[in-house]
Amino acid sequence: MTKPKNDTLLRALLRQPVEYTPVWLMRQAGRYLSEYNETRARAGDFLSLCKNPDFATEVTMQPLARFPLDAAILFSDILTIPDAMGLGLYFSEGEGPRFKHPLREEQEIRALKIPDPGSDLRYVMDAVTQIRKTLDNQVPLIGFSGSPFTLACYMVEGRGSSDFRHIKTMLYQRPELLHHILDINAQAVTAYLNAQIEAGAQAVMIFDTWGGALSHAAYPEFSLGYMQRILAGLKREHDGVRIPSVVFTKGGGLWLEKIADIGCDAVGLDWTVDIGEARRRVGDKVALQGNLDPFILFAEPETITVEVGKILASFGSGNGHVFNLGHGISQFTPPESAAALVEAVHTLSRPYHQA
Amino acid sequence: MTKPKNDTLLRALLRQPVEYTPVWLMRQAGRYLSEYNETRARAGDFLSLCKNPDFATEVTMQPLARFPLDAAILFSDILTIPDAMGLGLYFSEGEGPRFKHPLREEQEIRALKIPDPGSDLRYVMDAVTQIRKTLDNQVPLIGFSGSPFTLACYMVEGRGSSDFRHIKTMLYQRPELLHHILDINAQAVTAYLNAQIEAGAQAVMIFDTWGGALSHAAYPEFSLGYMQRILAGLKREHDGVRIPSVVFTKGGGLWLEKIADIGCDAVGLDWTVDIGEARRRVGDKVALQGNLDPFILFAEPETITVEVGKILASFGSGNGHVFNLGHGISQFTPPESAAALVEAVHTLSRPYHQA
Repeated sequence: MTKPKNDTLLRALLRQPVEYTPVWLMRQAGRYLSEYNETRARAGDFLSLCKNPDFATEVTMQPLARFPLDAAILFSDILTIPDAMGLGLYFSEGEGPRFKHPLREEQEIRALKIPDPGSDLRYVMDAVTQIRKTLDNQVPLIGFSGSPFTLACYMVEGRGSSDFRHIKTMLYQRPELLHHILDINAQAVTAYLNAQIEAGAQAVMIFDTWGGALSHAAYPEFSLGYMQRILAGLKREHDGVRIPSVVFTKGGGLWLEKIADIGCDAVGLDWTVDIGEARRRVGDKVALQGNLDPFILFAEPETITVEVGKILASFGSGNGHVFNLGHGISQFTPPESAAALVEAVHTLSRPYHQA
Repeated sequence: MTKPKNDTLLRALLRQPVEYTPVWLMRQAGRYLSEYNETRARAGDFLSLCKNPDFATEVTMQPLARFPLDAAILFSDILTIPDAMGLGLYFSEGEGPRFKHPLREEQEIRALKIPDPGSDLRYVMDAVTQIRKTLDNQVPLIGFSGSPFTLACYMVEGRGSSDFRHIKTMLYQRPELLHHILDINAQAVTAYLNAQIEAGAQAVMIFDTWGGALSHAAYPEFSLGYMQRILAGLKREHDGVRIPSVVFTKGGGLWLEKIADIGCDAVGLDWTVDIGEARRRVGDKVALQGNLDPFILFAEPETITVEVGKILASFGSGNGHVFNLGHGISQFTPPESAAALVEAVHTLSRPYHQA
């Protein structure tokens, strides 16, 4: 396998020396880009966009044409796995993802099957292959999945939730049932990420969007432990090249030491954490990815530059930082702000990487 | 002023010796109680319930008739202040609070006036007076307010928000405008809490429900600092009796040391924090209030008892713990669970308080 011409991201994730801090943006292919909205309109809706490798490739490439980003990330949804399990993913305008068949009955839970990535999720693997071809080794491609707990939140609630009442009721009333779902999800995510790696993903990220809703006591048992199992089953190399992994628990700032300890190469941070303090806490164990408040992109370019500078200064000199937002980019973001961000990261970070 | 017959809560908040750990529940007068729903139906709607001292007194007393709680908390809404500023608070069924006139224009922001608690918020002070009379010194009455930042979130967004886009845009684009709102709010909250204290509130709590949405860098400047100003202006004694204060930033677990440093007597904790670790971090500075995940109340009584025991054990022996949930009690909670919680706290905590 050929290394990407720009492999800064891969080196930073592995805490190797780089010339500048690489940057990509969570949800970088998205509604803040007019060309994305045009493709989406042609596709019909969001799910058709995800399920068609041509469209998925097109939108994956769009932000790279605009900004000198250091990585592409597979365009897909975090809920492809439960959709492939037959829960019936759909999107109602302005309401986010929903499932036609939320998982509540024990019988349905016991009947859950692990999807075969090569057939049930073939469209994702086809997209990975096609994106890699189109990328032509300019920058690496990041594959991803939702965490077992985050998938379970949507599967049990049937939609996004502000209080996670149904899944928490299951957690405290029938923990063994939730463990069964999480076990299936962990196996499914492992197979799914390994298939993405075989199809060409050069790094993988696990999005634990809702792990931060758990109590400090429940988090290790119901979210972190399952991510650890995934990492243990992940292909760490493909064609002789190391595949770095990133784990991101939104709202997990209190638990960074534990997250850094499960065998991932890098830990994602939201904006509630001071990245310098995070670095002192995790030491040399992992790289850190983050962590600008996405709403700083609503400020003037000068402010964006100042705030980028603060994060770079807080991390300080040395290896192991991948710049990103602390959450997905807002659909209302002016694209010029993303340009200002990327430029600021590339320019201001060089002094921190001089030998 | 006569001390309450049961002043366990006040002593615990001041880190004085107690015989058992006192307990109250955020939102203890609420929709999980059928008698509350009956009173609310008689009142017509939620706001009429808040604005009528007879009804407010009635619902404040209801949970005390059911459970041997160690405190009453004034029944009111956190948004009474912006309502009194003329923003037009209303509630649309199932959608939470909203304002008819969200604050977006500089001219409106500059024209904001601090309400006079004695006239504009007279109904709250009347409720405090009447509740104290009805309580007849059995347990202390807690007064409260939203934090300046949390009030500003609703004022600027016009409603609850999942991303706080408008207020964060203001924060990063026009910080001086947001500071103006926060300055007015801090003055208003100070006057409001002092008026509650004069009317009879025996402890006060500041609910910083949305401070946790801020970045680690913005939190001290836009939320914590204003709570510190309130505390500096608060009557710390009334009729020769000390009035303890509690500050609760939901999602603020990373910042406990800073919160403990602003002059409050106690710090509220949500369930993402291990209370024993929190105690080690804040040392002898403050008491701690919390922090059971409210959804543990959906489990069997035996599980509730076990989980209560874990929190008590984690805090350990000694003074300065007030038991509570880590967030308001869910409207779907079986009342028997609240009974099991209170009994478990009272019974299991005694060994931790033996001399």
